[in-house]
Amino acid sequence: MERITLEHAAKLLSEKDDILILMHKSPDGDAVGSGYGLAMALRSLGKRADPLCGDEIPKVYSYITDKVPAIGFEPKFIVSVDLATTALLSGSAVEYAESVDLCIDHHGSNNGYAKEGYVDGKSASCAEIIKKLLDIMQISIDNDMANAIFTGICTDTGCFKFSNVTSDTHRIAAELMDCGADSTEICRLMFDCKSRAKIELEKMVLETMEFSPDGKVAFVCITKDMMEKSGAAQGETEGIAGITKQIEGVKVGITMREKDNGEFRISVRSSEDIDASKICALFGGGGHRAAAGCSIFKEQTEAKKEIMAACIAAVEEAE
Amino acid sequence: MERITLEHAAKLLSEKDDILILMHKSPDGDAVGSGYGLAMALRSLGKRADPLCGDEIPKVYSYITDKVPAIGFEPKFIVSVDLATTALLSGSAVEYAESVDLCIDHHGSNNGYAKEGYVDGKSASCAEIIKKLLDIMQISIDNDMANAIFTGICTDTGCFKFSNVTSDTHRIAAELMDCGADSTEICRLMFDCKSRAKIELEKMVLETMEFSPDGKVAFVCITKDMMEKSGAAQGETEGIAGITKQIEGVKVGITMREKDNGEFRISVRSSEDIDASKICALFGGGGHRAAAGCSIFKEQTEAKKEIMAACIAAVEEAE
Repeated sequence: MERITLEHAAKLLSEKDDILILMHKSPDGDAVGSGYGLAMALRSLGKRADPLCGDEIPKVYSYITDKVPAIGFEPKFIVSVDLATTALLSGSAVEYAESVDLCIDHHGSNNGYAKEGYVDGKSASCAEIIKKLLDIMQISIDNDMANAIFTGICTDTGCFKFSNVTSDTHRIAAELMDCGADSTEICRLMFDCKSRAKIELEKMVLETMEFSPDGKVAFVCITKDMMEKSGAAQGETEGIAGITKQIEGVKVGITMREKDNGEFRISVRSSEDIDASKICALFGGGGHRAAAGCSIFKEQTEAKKEIMAACIAAVEEAE
Repeated sequence: MERITLEHAAKLLSEKDDILILMHKSPDGDAVGSGYGLAMALRSLGKRADPLCGDEIPKVYSYITDKVPAIGFEPKFIVSVDLATTALLSGSAVEYAESVDLCIDHHGSNNGYAKEGYVDGKSASCAEIIKKLLDIMQISIDNDMANAIFTGICTDTGCFKFSNVTSDTHRIAAELMDCGADSTEICRLMFDCKSRAKIELEKMVLETMEFSPDGKVAFVCITKDMMEKSGAAQGETEGIAGITKQIEGVKVGITMREKDNGEFRISVRSSEDIDASKICALFGGGGHRAAAGCSIFKEQTEAKKEIMAACIAAVEEAE
């Protein structure tokens, strides 16, 4: 992949038409916001542009997707957004894996699958790059585009909380609000809406919470039975992995999820002086220093005992 | 109170010395951030300035308060920040209630207790005004000042979520990050830290959750017994009032808190087409359209029954 400047990417897009924009499977706010936002922008120039995601877009994003009904055309230029590797394409998007002309991404790990690409690993979201791209293209950002791009920014930064946030992130958010982005409603939809099933699941999970005697290790478990009884969707367990690490005094938070065939999938989150990936490596897993994972194929009580013991040992060693 | 421009307020502060800065009781992030931030800024000009809050400042703000050890002097100029009325002064701050020289505030309801005042009801936080003030005074904002002011902004906006956020809010946040504000750590401390007691309380409260048959009214209760058993502090119940309204399909969320002498203090949050203040008025209470309160002096089950019935009736009427 030839690494190009954003100016060059803008020039390419200005020259092309019948543009297909690919997004990754299990689309999140940044994929949807970047893909649909770019499609809206290109259409505002009189071009034909369609976003394409192999998976169904969750209906929570309908305020974005409803603004971009599919046109349908034989694509002449293939763009990908927020896509680190074509392995993350799904369904009808897979057929374009080998023919991506232009990639716009913020994953430092992008494996260079496209002909030309602009990758900024320091950008908190791909949507921030899209905003800069539209500015270079001198596209007038209307409130629908602003809503789409703002969605990408706020979701990929946990509502401006994560360590990827830069002053640019806030500056772009300000500009998008000036273009009409409804930040209050977007933040409400993205962060303050829970299904009854999720609340039900949270209640059950909190009941499983246990601490090491010194309170530095916290544990929760999500069983298949809980998923079934609560009716929660798989995606709704995501926020739960963070619960334990939010508790005062907790240095290692463990979330254990029951999978099929006797597997317990374990996620470990740790504070800086404790290496979660080392703990998980003991069980054949791995990951990052602050967040790692592994699997234990044992009975529930035994699995809990083993991972708790390993985490308690890691805390003691770090002291 | 003479309403003055921020430029005039800046001129006053530039001319004065031995400045005492008053904050309201039960200090929140905006009071602490504004008061201590302003004190740091004035000290950077070689002036003597002390912040004064009648209540103890919660230790979660120690990264701000530790930077401003009290000097102690006979004050010659009294400033208040984030203080809508002197009725909100407490302890040792009360004696200055009648002698506030300059008030800087963002409460539209400010009752004009000071000699001169700058009040901007459209500002999401008082801290935003402090930032503008320092810019006018051409004070070089260091990272401690930036952390203090950023804290005020993010806490009064629910981490950039509330409807009071403007593009200025984000623009100022960006500038503060450029001055060294550690937004990640501040957001973690302010929004992602919970005591074990609070988690314990949340678990108990979730267990009391009930819904109307159509799922449009949700109810939770916090009893004195739960407060005692969990060990949660009064301030830790705050976020809980919002839980019910976050649930998909819920139009009216009720939080009932047991007080002394058989009182149940009820908080009602509603969606736009339902008037919470009207519901609460039925029980002698009041408030805003979207958030109101009242008290019911009945036995717990009866109190719940009455407020649920009133909310269900309000939902039916709105349809």
